[in-house]
Amino acid sequence: MTKTESAKYNKVVLSPPVPPPQAGRGRNEMPIYREILEQAKAAKAASLVLANASAEQRNRLLLLLSKTLIDQQGKVVEANREDLAQAKAAGRNSAYLDRLGFFEADIRKTADALSAVRELPDPLNRLLSENKRPNGLLVKQVAVPIGVIAIIYESRPDVTVEAAGLCLKSGNAVILKGGSDSLQTNTVLAQILRQSLEKANFPAGSVSLVASREHAAVDYLLSLSGYINLVIPRGGESLIRTVVEKSKIPVIKHYKGVCHTYVDKAADLNMAWSVTLNAKTQRPATCNATETLLVHRDIAPDFLPEMARLFQEKGVEMRGCPDTRRIIPQARVAQESDWGNEFLDLTIAIKVVASPEEAIFWVNTYGTGHSEAIITGDNLIAEMFLKEVDAAAIYHNASTRFTDGFEFGLGAEIGISTDKIHARGPMGLKELTSYKYLVYGDGQVRT
Amino acid sequence: MTKTESAKYNKVVLSPPVPPPQAGRGRNEMPIYREILEQAKAAKAASLVLANASAEQRNRLLLLLSKTLIDQQGKVVEANREDLAQAKAAGRNSAYLDRLGFFEADIRKTADALSAVRELPDPLNRLLSENKRPNGLLVKQVAVPIGVIAIIYESRPDVTVEAAGLCLKSGNAVILKGGSDSLQTNTVLAQILRQSLEKANFPAGSVSLVASREHAAVDYLLSLSGYINLVIPRGGESLIRTVVEKSKIPVIKHYKGVCHTYVDKAADLNMAWSVTLNAKTQRPATCNATETLLVHRDIAPDFLPEMARLFQEKGVEMRGCPDTRRIIPQARVAQESDWGNEFLDLTIAIKVVASPEEAIFWVNTYGTGHSEAIITGDNLIAEMFLKEVDAAAIYHNASTRFTDGFEFGLGAEIGISTDKIHARGPMGLKELTSYKYLVYGDGQVRT
Repeated sequence: MTKTESAKYNKVVLSPPVPPPQAGRGRNEMPIYREILEQAKAAKAASLVLANASAEQRNRLLLLLSKTLIDQQGKVVEANREDLAQAKAAGRNSAYLDRLGFFEADIRKTADALSAVRELPDPLNRLLSENKRPNGLLVKQVAVPIGVIAIIYESRPDVTVEAAGLCLKSGNAVILKGGSDSLQTNTVLAQILRQSLEKANFPAGSVSLVASREHAAVDYLLSLSGYINLVIPRGGESLIRTVVEKSKIPVIKHYKGVCHTYVDKAADLNMAWSVTLNAKTQRPATCNATETLLVHRDIAPDFLPEMARLFQEKGVEMRGCPDTRRIIPQARVAQESDWGNEFLDLTIAIKVVASPEEAIFWVNTYGTGHSEAIITGDNLIAEMFLKEVDAAAIYHNASTRFTDGFEFGLGAEIGISTDKIHARGPMGLKELTSYKYLVYGDGQVRT
Repeated sequence: MTKTESAKYNKVVLSPPVPPPQAGRGRNEMPIYREILEQAKAAKAASLVLANASAEQRNRLLLLLSKTLIDQQGKVVEANREDLAQAKAAGRNSAYLDRLGFFEADIRKTADALSAVRELPDPLNRLLSENKRPNGLLVKQVAVPIGVIAIIYESRPDVTVEAAGLCLKSGNAVILKGGSDSLQTNTVLAQILRQSLEKANFPAGSVSLVASREHAAVDYLLSLSGYINLVIPRGGESLIRTVVEKSKIPVIKHYKGVCHTYVDKAADLNMAWSVTLNAKTQRPATCNATETLLVHRDIAPDFLPEMARLFQEKGVEMRGCPDTRRIIPQARVAQESDWGNEFLDLTIAIKVVASPEEAIFWVNTYGTGHSEAIITGDNLIAEMFLKEVDAAAIYHNASTRFTDGFEFGLGAEIGISTDKIHARGPMGLKELTSYKYLVYGDGQVRT
């Protein structure tokens, strides 16, 4: 768009004649609330500009963003060094510092990710359905952006850039609230984002960063349902539960992934060993790692001893049911609390089952609707499992670790949903869109 | 399914070994909470059976339901007569009693609606996408039910049957909470629903009615996010705001419809008069009736006098801006509070605008994202309006009154959403579905 158009919308945005009734009241005289409210208003205004920008304009913005990020990486690394030093002084552990660190190699990787997003097909303006009615009305359903999306996440600077990139590519304005330990890094990244927006003639309000360390600031943000259309929390279960508890805005979320791999009696043993080992150990701290292994009793004596050897080689702690421990006594006794537990670690619960039906029942009882796998050579049993298990992704003869936007061919991922509303499983660009109905008539009236 | 299968699932359902952690605690020892918790558990269990029932089985259920409803209409009318008498004694107005009344003609109409739903295409098991990955994984995305849906609505017995019919057709279990004044009618309708479920060998928990008159019962229901996947409130704005405020479960809703009709300078005058009159007066109490008329200043002197005459003929009260009142002085002075007001009555606000851009700005500022129309012969202006207005349905040369599931060809409607998440605009059967990913491999592991 031209500068003039952009300015026109900016004006529209910054002085809405009527504040939506849902906006928080009273508190908005305090500076931090006032700032958040202004950010939300500016984001809503910017969302109208973004929705009408062409794919070329949005892609040019992403190109400018990845260039500016590389050009100014020195400033980013410097700010990140300060964040890291403070977090270290505060006693954060090494895994935490690892996620917080944003070095030149990470910045290059993030810039490459932006380029990959840029090259993805435009998710907007897709014709989703078309229906000519008997009265002559033509009803078209067309993909449009969601509007304003708030992303609430932990101290991970890579998320700042990648989430902003995905939202802008899909025509959404975004409000970012990262963890407090990454505030200095995020502040520099937000400057880079704003500079890129200005160069590309987009309203600066398209991206904003909530710079407060106060919890009350997030609570206030989550009350602004008149301006914000969707909240995506990313992080640990407690962060997500807090967001759901407080939010007056729709939330798409994923509490946790308690994934199962069921080895059926008709499984190919070599495949079952390799897939189960991968599902447990390839990255045990991820939500799509397998936490419980279910084994059909007929194959358990052949399958479990070698599986146990492989697990032990990788340092996996096994916790088994009584039938499991009769075959592999080296497994510890599983407690009731081990079933349905998300270990996020090199620990696995193992249960022998009498039938695929029992496996399905078990998965639907203890699973969290994330990713579930069956290993079997029997296609009928596999189809039953895929049909009857209630989860976002169900695998036949593959590792649960594949639940991921890139692996599913979505090209990108802003998160994984275990909700059933709007998006389920990996969320890519299409999942960041809504739609509107365009209805073409020649004077039709309703009778 | 067979009785045995149904019984198996019933067993699964009624004794889940681990109560989901989100379930309300403490309160569940009180009889009403205990009952609601049992209903929610039974609904979740039943949802697994419904999800795996064939389209034929679900259609047979709807057939039995409409037959049973007709067979037992005497009992329904009798219970409704008591509800009506009590509501009248409590001083309810005639419009209210009209919605509460459920007579033989209404019952026949409802049975016909069930038949129409039965004949709609099955919304389940549609292949939404299919993707063969470079590693050989085949990723299929398939439509499945949402699971358990709670419908919270006013004292309208027709909603009880129609909402249940739509949920069952789409394989969802449903928990119904109707207005207290319809409790006796709903109790009989729930018996009819349960009898039909049993005859068709579906678990009785597929449909349940929250029979309490206590507000706390609804609050408790809205906390059961471990069992219920979606809440759809239907009714006035305050009911909907209360549900959003309390719910820990995703809500799809529609607060209100402040719809505009914009008559552009290139409008056909006859079309503009007829469409505007229809949009305002055909059923003024509905959410898709036009509340504000915007008129381009160049056409206002030709358009407004005859429009005013037509409005006055129908008893419409006009409230105009100063420019409007210079042309039609019979209009009252519009107050600031008239813009963006949902009159739901024979009242219209009228504003003269200088350009289509001003109309778009006005609509995006005062509208509620429901239904907006432009009347113009200029297709470029129309395209601009359709693209830049942010609403669920945008009309070129047609009445805003068409926003409706039947009119859009969805075949049915459970409600209209002004959210942008999951469903926007009229919600039919497809909007009552989610999806799952089925992934077919031959031993793939992630590296």
